[in-house]
Amino acid sequence: MIQRLAIVGVGLLGGSVAKAARSAELAREIVGVGRDEARLCAPLHDGALDRATTNLEVGVRDADFVLLAVPVLAIEALLPRVWRAVADGVTVTDVGSTKAAIVRRADELSEGRALAFVGSHPMAGSEQSGYGAARTDLFRAATVVVTPTDRTEPHAVKAVTGFWEAMGARVSALDPETHDAVVAAISHLPHLVAYALVDGVARFEPAALELAARGFKDTTRIAASDPDVWAEIFQANRAPLAASLDAFRRALAELEHAITRGSAAELRAALARIKAARETIR
Amino acid sequence: MIQRLAIVGVGLLGGSVAKAARSAELAREIVGVGRDEARLCAPLHDGALDRATTNLEVGVRDADFVLLAVPVLAIEALLPRVWRAVADGVTVTDVGSTKAAIVRRADELSEGRALAFVGSHPMAGSEQSGYGAARTDLFRAATVVVTPTDRTEPHAVKAVTGFWEAMGARVSALDPETHDAVVAAISHLPHLVAYALVDGVARFEPAALELAARGFKDTTRIAASDPDVWAEIFQANRAPLAASLDAFRRALAELEHAITRGSAAELRAALARIKAARETIR
Repeated sequence: MIQRLAIVGVGLLGGSVAKAARSAELAREIVGVGRDEARLCAPLHDGALDRATTNLEVGVRDADFVLLAVPVLAIEALLPRVWRAVADGVTVTDVGSTKAAIVRRADELSEGRALAFVGSHPMAGSEQSGYGAARTDLFRAATVVVTPTDRTEPHAVKAVTGFWEAMGARVSALDPETHDAVVAAISHLPHLVAYALVDGVARFEPAALELAARGFKDTTRIAASDPDVWAEIFQANRAPLAASLDAFRRALAELEHAITRGSAAELRAALARIKAARETIR
Repeated sequence: MIQRLAIVGVGLLGGSVAKAARSAELAREIVGVGRDEARLCAPLHDGALDRATTNLEVGVRDADFVLLAVPVLAIEALLPRVWRAVADGVTVTDVGSTKAAIVRRADELSEGRALAFVGSHPMAGSEQSGYGAARTDLFRAATVVVTPTDRTEPHAVKAVTGFWEAMGARVSALDPETHDAVVAAISHLPHLVAYALVDGVARFEPAALELAARGFKDTTRIAASDPDVWAEIFQANRAPLAASLDAFRRALAELEHAITRGSAAELRAALARIKAARETIR
């Protein structure tokens, strides 16, 4: 059992971890760290947190498990302060949607002082944000990718894997670079495309939005995602995202060619092949 | 009350009309027309149809209301046969997702013999297809666009509007060309983009599909749509679709530029503007 769990950033993900950890009795005490005192009231009030502070060093000082649940660039920026503030042997993980830069930073810091760090990416979320959207069951049946490297302490992988599994998640391991390429394809690119779909219609055919039916709504739900979070993800993962965008543009151009120049049979065959691929992930 | 409702094509949409019309007691008798006898067994068996035939002329001959619910190019091709086979004064409508070509064809046929034709497009559907996916409540709270022209008989608009409203739909009227531009933006383009998203990942990063989470699934749900239906829609509406695709590509290129060259603040502002546009259609 964790004696003191410190959660830095008590929004959708950090708040859901607080609720899930409380519900599964994973920690004796849960401390929340946030920049804005007013936003820490709700999780204190409903009992997800035992204590809250706006001071990072105070919040993590006596913790034996630290979870960083702020946007990705902020995670990278906070790591050196966390490294200095925590006690020896503390387990540290994060929830960032991109991993290579964060893990590289942690590996550099480990040269000075070995801590039990391993990166995590819970593939659960919502287009909503903030503690108000946090849910006890957010990680149930979700996939969490952990990204150990050659330098990662095996007991950190074990502790962090056990932490997510106790909240109902399935854990798989990927190296950080593979992780970033995979999430560029299946998460960051769809978000970018959803934003562009909404923007194209909103700017060039705004009256059409009134008639949007279920197809448009589902396809663009994630375009209502948190701009602060996603601006950082897109910029942090720009190279893998550019590669996925390139694959997408090629596929789109080929379909367009089949529509404008191809036969009906060719187009049908292409759509049937894609439908079959989509059905493998139902 | 309709004495005999003929439904040509008893799949997802035609089957749902049969079920809804039966449930709302809109017609004394419902006749289904299909190419494949075996596929007409289920709606006959469960009572959605009273009679079924594979002969178009036989099916529509004594109907006073005819609904064409086959793919869009087939609707266009069947119209002259319907025109010859039905009695005077019969109300004819369709469920095609593109309207300009179908309505133009009907207007031409009306020069020879005036029938009560008005185009319809129920903006309801599913990535599933066939009678097995048909639902009595498919049109409840859905929008149906009707597309009358200068030549359309006012009583046809009234009859067709009343027909859809009796099944729980909201009806709005658009001219056929405006309709096609609107659905290109909010329906055909999202379908095309969803197909391209799946195809890009399936071909260039296939292992990533295994980790697809809710965002990818929602964004690409419609990429499992019926290839026969969508090949015809894309090709029938290629010009308005090309215009929407152009708007989408511009929006995507601007976002990409903000990611690779812009400041974090610029990108956040763009995403926040798009989030606000998306939230208007919740």
